[in-house]
Amino acid sequence: METLKEYLVNMIQKNAEELNLVEKFIKIATIFIVIFILTRIVNKIIDRTIKNRKKAPLLVSNKRANTLINTLRKSINYFLIFVGVIMSLDLFGIDTKSILATAGIGGLAIGFGAQSLVKDLITGIFILLEDQYSVGELIKIEGYEGIVEDLGVRVTKLRDFSGELHIIPNGNIKIVTNKTRGAMRSMAIMSIAYEEDINKAIKVLEDECDKINKDNDCILEGPIVLGVDNLGDYSVDIKVMAKTNPMDQWHIEREMRKELKIALEKAGIEIPYPKNVILKEDQNNV
Amino acid sequence: METLKEYLVNMIQKNAEELNLVEKFIKIATIFIVIFILTRIVNKIIDRTIKNRKKAPLLVSNKRANTLINTLRKSINYFLIFVGVIMSLDLFGIDTKSILATAGIGGLAIGFGAQSLVKDLITGIFILLEDQYSVGELIKIEGYEGIVEDLGVRVTKLRDFSGELHIIPNGNIKIVTNKTRGAMRSMAIMSIAYEEDINKAIKVLEDECDKINKDNDCILEGPIVLGVDNLGDYSVDIKVMAKTNPMDQWHIEREMRKELKIALEKAGIEIPYPKNVILKEDQNNV
Amino acid sequence: METLKEYLVNMIQKNAEELNLVEKFIKIATIFIVIFILTRIVNKIIDRTIKNRKKAPLLVSNKRANTLINTLRKSINYFLIFVGVIMSLDLFGIDTKSILATAGIGGLAIGFGAQSLVKDLITGIFILLEDQYSVGELIKIEGYEGIVEDLGVRVTKLRDFSGELHIIPNGNIKIVTNKTRGAMRSMAIMSIAYEEDINKAIKVLEDECDKINKDNDCILEGPIVLGVDNLGDYSVDIKVMAKTNPMDQWHIEREMRKELKIALEKAGIEIPYPKNVILKEDQNNV
Amino acid sequence: METLKEYLVNMIQKNAEELNLVEKFIKIATIFIVIFILTRIVNKIIDRTIKNRKKAPLLVSNKRANTLINTLRKSINYFLIFVGVIMSLDLFGIDTKSILATAGIGGLAIGFGAQSLVKDLITGIFILLEDQYSVGELIKIEGYEGIVEDLGVRVTKLRDFSGELHIIPNGNIKIVTNKTRGAMRSMAIMSIAYEEDINKAIKVLEDECDKINKDNDCILEGPIVLGVDNLGDYSVDIKVMAKTNPMDQWHIEREMRKELKIALEKAGIEIPYPKNVILKEDQNNV
Amino acid sequence: METLKEYLVNMIQKNAEELNLVEKFIKIATIFIVIFILTRIVNKIIDRTIKNRKKAPLLVSNKRANTLINTLRKSINYFLIFVGVIMSLDLFGIDTKSILATAGIGGLAIGFGAQSLVKDLITGIFILLEDQYSVGELIKIEGYEGIVEDLGVRVTKLRDFSGELHIIPNGNIKIVTNKTRGAMRSMAIMSIAYEEDINKAIKVLEDECDKINKDNDCILEGPIVLGVDNLGDYSVDIKVMAKTNPMDQWHIEREMRKELKIALEKAGIEIPYPKNVILKEDQNNV
Amino acid sequence: METLKEYLVNMIQKNAEELNLVEKFIKIATIFIVIFILTRIVNKIIDRTIKNRKKAPLLVSNKRANTLINTLRKSINYFLIFVGVIMSLDLFGIDTKSILATAGIGGLAIGFGAQSLVKDLITGIFILLEDQYSVGELIKIEGYEGIVEDLGVRVTKLRDFSGELHIIPNGNIKIVTNKTRGAMRSMAIMSIAYEEDINKAIKVLEDECDKINKDNDCILEGPIVLGVDNLGDYSVDIKVMAKTNPMDQWHIEREMRKELKIALEKAGIEIPYPKNVILKEDQNNV
Amino acid sequence: METLKEYLVNMIQKNAEELNLVEKFIKIATIFIVIFILTRIVNKIIDRTIKNRKKAPLLVSNKRANTLINTLRKSINYFLIFVGVIMSLDLFGIDTKSILATAGIGGLAIGFGAQSLVKDLITGIFILLEDQYSVGELIKIEGYEGIVEDLGVRVTKLRDFSGELHIIPNGNIKIVTNKTRGAMRSMAIMSIAYEEDINKAIKVLEDECDKINKDNDCILEGPIVLGVDNLGDYSVDIKVMAKTNPMDQWHIEREMRKELKIALEKAGIEIPYPKNVILKEDQNNV
Repeated sequence: METLKEYLVNMIQKNAEELNLVEKFIKIATIFIVIFILTRIVNKIIDRTIKNRKKAPLLVSNKRANTLINTLRKSINYFLIFVGVIMSLDLFGIDTKSILATAGIGGLAIGFGAQSLVKDLITGIFILLEDQYSVGELIKIEGYEGIVEDLGVRVTKLRDFSGELHIIPNGNIKIVTNKTRGAMRSMAIMSIAYEEDINKAIKVLEDECDKINKDNDCILEGPIVLGVDNLGDYSVDIKVMAKTNPMDQWHIEREMRKELKIALEKAGIEIPYPKNVILKEDQNNV
Repeated sequence: METLKEYLVNMIQKNAEELNLVEKFIKIATIFIVIFILTRIVNKIIDRTIKNRKKAPLLVSNKRANTLINTLRKSINYFLIFVGVIMSLDLFGIDTKSILATAGIGGLAIGFGAQSLVKDLITGIFILLEDQYSVGELIKIEGYEGIVEDLGVRVTKLRDFSGELHIIPNGNIKIVTNKTRGAMRSMAIMSIAYEEDINKAIKVLEDECDKINKDNDCILEGPIVLGVDNLGDYSVDIKVMAKTNPMDQWHIEREMRKELKIALEKAGIEIPYPKNVILKEDQNNV
Repeated sequence: METLKEYLVNMIQKNAEELNLVEKFIKIATIFIVIFILTRIVNKIIDRTIKNRKKAPLLVSNKRANTLINTLRKSINYFLIFVGVIMSLDLFGIDTKSILATAGIGGLAIGFGAQSLVKDLITGIFILLEDQYSVGELIKIEGYEGIVEDLGVRVTKLRDFSGELHIIPNGNIKIVTNKTRGAMRSMAIMSIAYEEDINKAIKVLEDECDKINKDNDCILEGPIVLGVDNLGDYSVDIKVMAKTNPMDQWHIEREMRKELKIALEKAGIEIPYPKNVILKEDQNNV
Repeated sequence: METLKEYLVNMIQKNAEELNLVEKFIKIATIFIVIFILTRIVNKIIDRTIKNRKKAPLLVSNKRANTLINTLRKSINYFLIFVGVIMSLDLFGIDTKSILATAGIGGLAIGFGAQSLVKDLITGIFILLEDQYSVGELIKIEGYEGIVEDLGVRVTKLRDFSGELHIIPNGNIKIVTNKTRGAMRSMAIMSIAYEEDINKAIKVLEDECDKINKDNDCILEGPIVLGVDNLGDYSVDIKVMAKTNPMDQWHIEREMRKELKIALEKAGIEIPYPKNVILKEDQNNV
Repeated sequence: METLKEYLVNMIQKNAEELNLVEKFIKIATIFIVIFILTRIVNKIIDRTIKNRKKAPLLVSNKRANTLINTLRKSINYFLIFVGVIMSLDLFGIDTKSILATAGIGGLAIGFGAQSLVKDLITGIFILLEDQYSVGELIKIEGYEGIVEDLGVRVTKLRDFSGELHIIPNGNIKIVTNKTRGAMRSMAIMSIAYEEDINKAIKVLEDECDKINKDNDCILEGPIVLGVDNLGDYSVDIKVMAKTNPMDQWHIEREMRKELKIALEKAGIEIPYPKNVILKEDQNNV
Repeated sequence: METLKEYLVNMIQKNAEELNLVEKFIKIATIFIVIFILTRIVNKIIDRTIKNRKKAPLLVSNKRANTLINTLRKSINYFLIFVGVIMSLDLFGIDTKSILATAGIGGLAIGFGAQSLVKDLITGIFILLEDQYSVGELIKIEGYEGIVEDLGVRVTKLRDFSGELHIIPNGNIKIVTNKTRGAMRSMAIMSIAYEEDINKAIKVLEDECDKINKDNDCILEGPIVLGVDNLGDYSVDIKVMAKTNPMDQWHIEREMRKELKIALEKAGIEIPYPKNVILKEDQNNV
Repeated sequence: METLKEYLVNMIQKNAEELNLVEKFIKIATIFIVIFILTRIVNKIIDRTIKNRKKAPLLVSNKRANTLINTLRKSINYFLIFVGVIMSLDLFGIDTKSILATAGIGGLAIGFGAQSLVKDLITGIFILLEDQYSVGELIKIEGYEGIVEDLGVRVTKLRDFSGELHIIPNGNIKIVTNKTRGAMRSMAIMSIAYEEDINKAIKVLEDECDKINKDNDCILEGPIVLGVDNLGDYSVDIKVMAKTNPMDQWHIEREMRKELKIALEKAGIEIPYPKNVILKEDQNNV
């Protein structure tokens, strides 16, 4: 039996050979050089993509865009370094499969839970990059409508007209309806009695429409009288439509309803109440 | 104990043999030649598919189609190169399983999150290739209706008649209803009183239909009187139908409602108000 | 130290042995012979299946069926060849696990995305093979009704009666309702007053039904008077039903409504308006 | 260096040993004997299960049952043979993991797509074995009601009373409602005025019920008068119920409505129209 | 070169050693002893669980319980034997991974399909063990209500009051509503006119309630008058409630409605018809 | 050739060495010591958690809590022992991968099926630990409302006011509404005619509210008159609200409706019937 | 044959070498040093994140935040230690794959079940960190509205205005509507008769609005008269709107309804009852 000293010397020597240090350091060096180059390339790609974007009239504020870029860049760099560390550990005979597998079991449960978080971030990034909406615009998401108060990477905050604040995780956003991009429609349905002359009524409405157009600067087009929209139970319904600046559509609709109603009244055209024909019949017991 | 120099020389020599460089370079060469050939074949297949498509009257603009092709081609090429790099690393004893496994854990979470992104792209490509709709057409998707303003690879933008802009990720598109392919139907339901002669009313409506046909160029067929659509509570409802150019159907419907109503009135056929029969009965306490 | 030349000669010699070429070529040959036989067998099975099908009165056009068969056959052959290539690479010590694993990570994301594509194709093939519907038939799928304009492997196109074109990916098709297979039902509900004699009204309707049957060739059976369908608030509702050729049911329904209404009127049977009994009571403040 | 001939001889000899043919053939033989025995056992089990079933009054036609059994038996046999082939290949050093892994990647996508197909078949088999419904019965599935026209292994076809043919993949079938197993209920609600004597009305209805019972052979039980089902706004609603043969319930309901209405009229019991009490009040501006 | 005989002898000898039969048989013996002990333990556990259950007043019939236990016991035993066979094969160098992997690919598809079957069985077992309902009871599941006709391990059959038979796979059963466990409520809403004295009406109803209680044996408690349930448009609604034996609640409700209505009438308390105040106004054109 | 005896001796000897018993027993000992320590730690953690809980005024009965703890403790201990057994088998060269893999295939199907069972248990434990509800409380879950009759680890039983017993698997419980924690609201809407003086009516109601408060001990706060809740078609609706002990809210609501109605009547304030203004117009054909 | 003693000595010696203790302890040391450093880094990151947060006016109470941090920190530390233990076991040749795999099978089922628990915690942490709501605020989640009574890491408790307590697992929270952040809207719709002068009515309402503003301190803005919101069947509806402190909106709405109604009445502007035009017609049988 050898002495413990000899034993240890032999062990270390044996290990030294077995560990094969030179080869391993070369490999590790290679790994980290590759990773370094990869991070450079990734950063370059991100920078270039962003620069091209900036030339375009992108509505995302510079500060927010920078935050976004840095977050993205850091995540990728850290990920690559982590891969490098794992690979290096592997070379020294430390079985990284255990780490990965252990992480895997816990990770599955967490992964499912965190999945909606990842979805929030990805959707958030696309909303920013595609400029689907920005702060101050009126939008509608999943039945929630309001002015965008904050557009974060994880949640979007909408201020309802009733004053309520809706906090919507971006991952829940599927179809976005933006109501501040382009001209909006104002519409009014004017009902006249069946006995009235439709053509005359249309004439009266068209005259009034011209007046409304002149009196309201926020009207971009019309109002025009489209025609008979519906033959109701006791009224002929005539549709009138205008195009306005965004957010002015309700105001103009209210204006149109008031002015057109007064115009019809002045022209003596009946706006009908519900009408019924009553047929009297004597019942046998009377 | 050997000197460090000798040790290093031996190590390198040993490694050189072990690494077995010639064999490895031959293998790497083989791998990249195969990959090169594969990219060629893939590119050929894509080109040929596209060329065949172009002969057909494909509505996709040339520019968009080219962007699409290049994106597709680049993705495949990069993927093949990545496979080659991983395989080469493998040959040098660098355990690529760690990379793949590490990537796997993070990738699972990201994969689930990104899955809707992939779905967006795939659906987008099929919409383009199958020409399901193009810019300027009126379509309806998932209850959202509007004129297509932009048809991107990830999102489709619809402009509602109310001026609202719907931004729909392509992956959410299942059933598409295109309202600008072929003739559209205009329909009007004309109600007459139960006391009137149905055959006479139909005659009156048919005469007027002929006049409407002559006065409107955008009518492709009809209007024709189909017959008694419904026996209502107090009216006999007669259905009238025409075929028009797309987007003219509402205009013609309004025209039909107005003209047919006037025609019935002129012919003295009653358009009934709601009718009730009242039976009076004296209550015991009167 | 050996000279490089010697080194290379040795290397190649060593590799040659190690590579063990004869054994490998025998294995590769075996692999491809098996694959060749398999493709033959698969093709045979497909051909025989199709031939048997063709004897049956299958409505699928020959051309479409051939396209389908060729697509299927090619996919299987290419898949088998791909398996052979991977297996051959494996024999030469090129670690194909990397290829498969690399493909796996990307493939998972794509797989989930493409899964609906595969579902489209499979459902499409079954619709064709089972002849669930063909071009020109009137069907209803997931609430969308129309004439089948195109029945592709990936999408089905329906032309609505309103002229709209519904483009439905086959994978979204679950329950199909075909309205052109067999006789269709025409149904009319005729309301008579509570005061009328039900048996007399049924007699009148039955006489008229005979006349309608004689006047319309597209009626296959009936119309017959089924009896009292409902005791309404102010009417006794009698149901009349006929069987007609497909697509003629609405036409016959309109005819039945018109003719039966006129018949009841002629017989002096009241078709009632809504009736109310009014009980007058003096209020205390009068 | 050896001559090529020697080289080849050595190679083959070496391989022969390495391949270790005797051992392998013994193993392969063992594998296939096991598989043979397994197929026998499986077939026995299937046969016995079916024989036991056949003694029970199973409604599945013999021909269909045989088809089903053969399909099942063949699938299992082919599967076992496939396993044997894979295992034999494995023994000859052909890495079958590649086949399985390659198949796996494509298989995942197909698997998800085909999953509904498997579900169709399994549900189909259970419907047959449990005799949930058979051709000619009236059933309701997922809101679709009709006579079963065809009950296939993959789809069930229902013929609606309106003549429409519903094609339902078996996998979509969850809860089945069978309307042809056992006696069905016919129900009529007869309304009388609040002023009438309830007990007298019940007497009148009961007398008429006896007459209806005698006149209709398809009535199994009743009709009986249950009592006051509801105190409506202006009527006391009395419920009458009978048990009939399947498919006769609507016919009897119509008969009951007609005869009971006439009986009430004859007895001078009022079937009320909607009643209102009107309180007149003079408004200030009159 | 050896002669074939020698070759074979050597082969077998070599294999014999390599196969290392003694060791293997010891292992196999160990495996099956462990399996035998496991099956014993499992059977013991099942038996004990069942015995404990039986002492409790479990409503499951003995026969059904035994069937259930045997099915469970057999499944576990077969499964353990299968594991033993696979492990033994493994020891003889037959690569069972192929079997498992092959089975895995097909199994995935089948697994997904069969998953609902497993769910049916598990839910069925819990319904039996927890005695959620038994044959002859009135229950409601997922909107389907009826008398339980059969409670199988895979499906539950409900007979609707309309005679329809609902076949519900147990896996679809989530929330069960049992209507035959404990006293049921009968409820009637009696409306009186606004002009009537509420306290007097309540007195009248309470007196009648006492009479109803005496006349009906199936009433467990009440009926009692709860008070003013609603101030309707033209009536004050008073709620009356009783507790009855299960299945008698509808009968008692009908009785209560009839008797209380007659009682109110006798007491001269008005049960109001809909009332309206009419304000006459002369229109300008009269 | 050796004799069989010698052969066996050698075999056993060889195996003995190969099996390397000492090393293995050391390992197994280590495994079970670790497992023993782990079970101790787990039990300690559970005990401590429970003890801390018990100091808090936890409503879970002691007996139920103990059952729960024991179940949890046993499951963990058995699981750890199972892991130890598998690991020990592994050491003796018995390939446990087969067991795990075999279990895996069956386990996948069962796993999916049993998953809802696990969910039931986990949710049940949290409901108990968080004391979301206990027996005798009135709660509402997924639209099912009733008194909790039993709160098991797998199912919760609710007794509806109608006497029905709802059996709800805990896994289906998401949002719980507890109606017995804290004061409940009683609310009544009193309608007065438009012609009445609102302030006077509010005064009358407030006076009566004071009286109601004095007469009912179960009222904790109010009733107070909130103000004009709605301007209806023909009535001004005034809201009155009180806070009561749980389960008394309906009783107080009925009391409030009765007393406030009588108070308004006494004060001569009109509770309006539906009112209509009738405008008479002579039709042209009269 | 050696003596047992010799055998054991040899065994241990052999194992000692094989186990290669020095190398292993170096590795284990390395592992735990790395883990120690990692926990330090993680703790630092958590501390720093929290400190930065605390400077911001974060509404989370200090105590709750600390609990949260500690929970998070402990979980990560325990996880890292667990990984270290598994890796160390691995080094001693104890196959940890069994542990992981065994855990995996059970873990899958538990994982799916526990997944909603993880989701609860993650969502809970984000609600706290993003300060989406805090105790005492009025919020609406998934249709449940109430004052936040408790905001735990797993559940949120809401107290409904009706006194009911909603217990909502955080994982079920998707879109949060906070009704106590910023000014709320009070809205009243005032109806006037068609015959009235709209401009005069608006004037009357505006004057009254000024008075209301002066009388109520909790009004932040308005009330203002927006204009004609709707042309109803028999009324012109005018919209009035104000901004108030949170929770005062209903109070102000009631005030507005009362005062504006009285103001209109005083100004003699008619608030219309439903109006109908009656056309009398003599029926043929009179």
